[in-house]
Amino acid sequence: MIIDLRSDTVTKPSKGMLDAMQSAHVGDDVFREDPTVNQLEERLAKMFGKQKALFFPSGSMANQVAIKLHTNPGEQVICDKYAHIYNYEVGGVAFHSGASCKLIDGDRGMFTAEQVKASINPTDYYYSQASLVEVENTTNKGGGACWDFQEIENINKICKTNTLGFHLDGARLWNALVAKNETTLQYGGVFDTISVCLSKGLGCPVGSVLIGDEEIMKKSLSLRKLFGGNMRQVGYLAAAGLYALDHNIERLAEDHKRAKEIGEVLTKLSTIKKVEPIETNIVIFELNDDVDEAQFLSKLKEKNIHIIGMGSNKLRMVTHLDYTEQMHEKLLGELKSI
Amino acid sequence: MIIDLRSDTVTKPSKGMLDAMQSAHVGDDVFREDPTVNQLEERLAKMFGKQKALFFPSGSMANQVAIKLHTNPGEQVICDKYAHIYNYEVGGVAFHSGASCKLIDGDRGMFTAEQVKASINPTDYYYSQASLVEVENTTNKGGGACWDFQEIENINKICKTNTLGFHLDGARLWNALVAKNETTLQYGGVFDTISVCLSKGLGCPVGSVLIGDEEIMKKSLSLRKLFGGNMRQVGYLAAAGLYALDHNIERLAEDHKRAKEIGEVLTKLSTIKKVEPIETNIVIFELNDDVDEAQFLSKLKEKNIHIIGMGSNKLRMVTHLDYTEQMHEKLLGELKSI
Amino acid sequence: MIIDLRSDTVTKPSKGMLDAMQSAHVGDDVFREDPTVNQLEERLAKMFGKQKALFFPSGSMANQVAIKLHTNPGEQVICDKYAHIYNYEVGGVAFHSGASCKLIDGDRGMFTAEQVKASINPTDYYYSQASLVEVENTTNKGGGACWDFQEIENINKICKTNTLGFHLDGARLWNALVAKNETTLQYGGVFDTISVCLSKGLGCPVGSVLIGDEEIMKKSLSLRKLFGGNMRQVGYLAAAGLYALDHNIERLAEDHKRAKEIGEVLTKLSTIKKVEPIETNIVIFELNDDVDEAQFLSKLKEKNIHIIGMGSNKLRMVTHLDYTEQMHEKLLGELKSI
Amino acid sequence: MIIDLRSDTVTKPSKGMLDAMQSAHVGDDVFREDPTVNQLEERLAKMFGKQKALFFPSGSMANQVAIKLHTNPGEQVICDKYAHIYNYEVGGVAFHSGASCKLIDGDRGMFTAEQVKASINPTDYYYSQASLVEVENTTNKGGGACWDFQEIENINKICKTNTLGFHLDGARLWNALVAKNETTLQYGGVFDTISVCLSKGLGCPVGSVLIGDEEIMKKSLSLRKLFGGNMRQVGYLAAAGLYALDHNIERLAEDHKRAKEIGEVLTKLSTIKKVEPIETNIVIFELNDDVDEAQFLSKLKEKNIHIIGMGSNKLRMVTHLDYTEQMHEKLLGELKSI
Repeated sequence: MIIDLRSDTVTKPSKGMLDAMQSAHVGDDVFREDPTVNQLEERLAKMFGKQKALFFPSGSMANQVAIKLHTNPGEQVICDKYAHIYNYEVGGVAFHSGASCKLIDGDRGMFTAEQVKASINPTDYYYSQASLVEVENTTNKGGGACWDFQEIENINKICKTNTLGFHLDGARLWNALVAKNETTLQYGGVFDTISVCLSKGLGCPVGSVLIGDEEIMKKSLSLRKLFGGNMRQVGYLAAAGLYALDHNIERLAEDHKRAKEIGEVLTKLSTIKKVEPIETNIVIFELNDDVDEAQFLSKLKEKNIHIIGMGSNKLRMVTHLDYTEQMHEKLLGELKSI
Repeated sequence: MIIDLRSDTVTKPSKGMLDAMQSAHVGDDVFREDPTVNQLEERLAKMFGKQKALFFPSGSMANQVAIKLHTNPGEQVICDKYAHIYNYEVGGVAFHSGASCKLIDGDRGMFTAEQVKASINPTDYYYSQASLVEVENTTNKGGGACWDFQEIENINKICKTNTLGFHLDGARLWNALVAKNETTLQYGGVFDTISVCLSKGLGCPVGSVLIGDEEIMKKSLSLRKLFGGNMRQVGYLAAAGLYALDHNIERLAEDHKRAKEIGEVLTKLSTIKKVEPIETNIVIFELNDDVDEAQFLSKLKEKNIHIIGMGSNKLRMVTHLDYTEQMHEKLLGELKSI
Repeated sequence: MIIDLRSDTVTKPSKGMLDAMQSAHVGDDVFREDPTVNQLEERLAKMFGKQKALFFPSGSMANQVAIKLHTNPGEQVICDKYAHIYNYEVGGVAFHSGASCKLIDGDRGMFTAEQVKASINPTDYYYSQASLVEVENTTNKGGGACWDFQEIENINKICKTNTLGFHLDGARLWNALVAKNETTLQYGGVFDTISVCLSKGLGCPVGSVLIGDEEIMKKSLSLRKLFGGNMRQVGYLAAAGLYALDHNIERLAEDHKRAKEIGEVLTKLSTIKKVEPIETNIVIFELNDDVDEAQFLSKLKEKNIHIIGMGSNKLRMVTHLDYTEQMHEKLLGELKSI
Repeated sequence: MIIDLRSDTVTKPSKGMLDAMQSAHVGDDVFREDPTVNQLEERLAKMFGKQKALFFPSGSMANQVAIKLHTNPGEQVICDKYAHIYNYEVGGVAFHSGASCKLIDGDRGMFTAEQVKASINPTDYYYSQASLVEVENTTNKGGGACWDFQEIENINKICKTNTLGFHLDGARLWNALVAKNETTLQYGGVFDTISVCLSKGLGCPVGSVLIGDEEIMKKSLSLRKLFGGNMRQVGYLAAAGLYALDHNIERLAEDHKRAKEIGEVLTKLSTIKKVEPIETNIVIFELNDDVDEAQFLSKLKEKNIHIIGMGSNKLRMVTHLDYTEQMHEKLLGELKSI
């Protein structure tokens, strides 16, 4: 039994999901004729109270196309210094959009409306002008932290006052919704564009969806083609998404519960300096200065437990759909015995 | 019975392909741990005598990443005025690579080594410098025309003399190989990078593969991530590719035979001015000046025959895996009765 | 006495121009406080019946900023295959604007409204969409040819119908105005943006000016700064421009007359295959196939006559402000004696 | 008498400089035939112990071309959060080079080798890779602060170990050299490329120069043309530069002395909360929270004293060549009387 907690992206489709995939009705989505893709897009658009949704091969592409929809070359995207779009998308904001990130020094990947206001450059012609504010919920590098929805609403007001677009990187939004008992409609009501991931918590093999109203999404299809994200009979992947929306959202509460239980055990370990607050399915903890990270990782690996380093002696565990109760019990036992 | 000849991309997986997909062993390809993807990439690299191959969600992305691998911003890509990368990839050469197309006025999408030589700008500092020559085989806009391999070898010599990269858009290379009795190793021997499509003639739902040696492919993984083409458990799609390599290449001869038979019928029709030479699975023909294209298309549609216009009163039919003998007989009958 | 006919850019300021430069009132133009720059910009805007003009260090920058004002990345600029912006600005259209040139196969750098119409791509999402038509008058690579103003008006109608911008590269517009007896107001009336050069025919050391109405020019100052074209006490250069507008336009007729006289002599030479039509100050001629270009150029150089090759055994001479009557007589004599 | 301390860019050429300009020998620098430009470039290259120097219309262009020389699209430039290239060049790093700024949270615009080391991303393929470290000396937004040369040498070691380029924005390097008694050769010995400004402290109307060895500068001429920075008879501006190198460097000590004297007066004022350390010719001070910035600025303006705001109730004064002893005495008197 291998316990793989490196990421919630490692899950494999369940029997039910695989059946849904194989029996999907498909068509050529480049001609927009794949009925399963169309069904998934319509369903997600409706869930968020928006007019349009578009399936993407990855969350990175969904985010980067969104950024391109909101910005012109030379402009700025206001986001947290921990933002996935800045840290883990290979410099895409500058590469694709010719735009710069104006980084906010936030708290676990989250910031305040006041900080956004202070980040907006003066309008003198030699300043780069902001055109977009980007929020990530939950925050990946911030350890699965969930935003306070009130603060998101405050930021939205700043965006509207300053005609800035407002994009949500919702790679793990489902986790936030479950943890905070929030709704998709709430989020659809404040953001202009939202990307959600069907892999990660939802357990699909591939896919993200970008959601927004007609006006802002007008060029999204052309941009997806430009980025090389237009695929043919892609309904097989969309079918997994439809299945996941039915079966895999509410159960995220289990992942969160297990993550907290892992955290409780870690807190008691003498080799560990600090466990960051656990709100969803991500556990980030810091080893004591005298503990060698590589050695710690390889010791776990010997016990068939796989986790990853985050730099600076910090490690990350992510619970997910394929992390069973049996694995959980074994893991807790092994951790206690360190 | 609907006869859809708009493109060879409209095919749906056969029972055998679907079974291969469902029983695929998969893993997280972002961690490079999908065994089926790895198997497909290794197989294709070996087929072309190259060191490396990488799976992409689309041929556009495979081509555009290849162009980025070969060029720096401000440089030129020498290609035919009919080239897919110039005409049907939304201006991607300029968007992604900041490069310009130096267009050759070729013959049905094909050009000569002499024309390449004449297209290379002087080295004065105010000229954009070429860094890549791109060839498409078979040519899409050229009506499925196949290159003379000797000319490709001549162009390759010009490339080597002038340190220009040499990329093949092999979206329909399989058709050329079958039609001209050529081998993948021949092509691997002259081109630096080759993109091949698993959809189109091969009948897979999704996917293209970029092939080249380690040195030129060094940044391909990072660029695929940058473009948003890194997917997770994508082995389901790769499994279809492996199945297609086993079962769907040789049978392309049938598509070519049927295309020629369609051409013979079209040639005799009084409403048709000209049928372009048919070498593979694409039939391009021109209506007489007094025939209304829209009306012609809708008349066919009434008979459940779907084809597309190419502009300038030209129409296109493409034969493929899902175009059966029964459909073929019906189509020929209907055409004769026009 | 050196006779330098390589380009009309080799002129040096006359005594009068130099005096005007030295006595200029200047200020920091980055703060927009240089009175001489402001005066030049206002004068040119008014001459063309536009609201705004902006001084640039070069015509390339003025053109490239104009292209950026009119386009978004991924779009197309419709222009002639001879266009300076495509051939001699180092691939800037793709580099700066991420846009592609849709080339028209025109006549001596000029094309028709019909050709523009045929160059506009369909609106399907996989096509790059045109946003700008660009015209060069006189044409450099076309040998100083002057456009028919009626055709320009026809093209303008196509632009308006298709919401395309319309830019004039007027590097040698002054020559066209004098040769065809046209006015700046005529040109201001049809084009959205116009770049004019103060060097070349006008004899200033440095500078071009971009002219247009407020709306389209809104971001021009910020883009000029972005390109690095904002200079400080640049009134010294603007003063030369003001002087040239007063003294050096009408005299272009002399350059044209001399160019034609050179052409007449060249036509009679046995070493020369063809002299292209001469409308302004550029003379392009082709050597006989058995004449070696390098040898021909060096033979002239020995006689202190400097001209340049254009490729394909074609040579170019350009008459200008510093090409005197004395030089002219000497040149004609030398040419006759070849 | 107007006292303009908004920037050291507001100076106008002295009689001597103007004479040098008017008597300059010039030529067409696009053909590289302007003797005065060539002389200035050779002199500066030699001063810094480098093989090549190139004249630019602005420091922004010199910096942005340098960044392009060092980076590929998608890569990172490590620099301070106060860096001019990030804050005041209109987002040029992303616009021109498709690169991102990896910002260091330094001290008055300066950072340590340790901070550089910590800023270099891991080499995993989803990270943007750094290719350049950029330093500004003196720091503009940091109040004219001068780097410790030892720290620059330490950073250079990190650059060499990690094959990172090392660029100096020396817009006010002359001030640092005079203040710290350092030499151009010292700086040429550690940096790969250096931009220096001829305006600002040196008092020229226009111009910056980029300096480096042949290898790294190979594409600089072509890039300057691409950016639109190639000018014709530009020796008039270069002549001012040569004059300034002879006459205006050592005297910067006066500007520094006066700046310190201004600082001493400001420190004693009750309306002022804090005066930042003054090392060269820039004085940055913060008003008390109860003092209105706009009112303060306009009160000074009434007395013909012009300075500018920096945001957050901070104001800036810059001493320069045209700020005379007479003005200095008047200013000190007026300040004391506030």
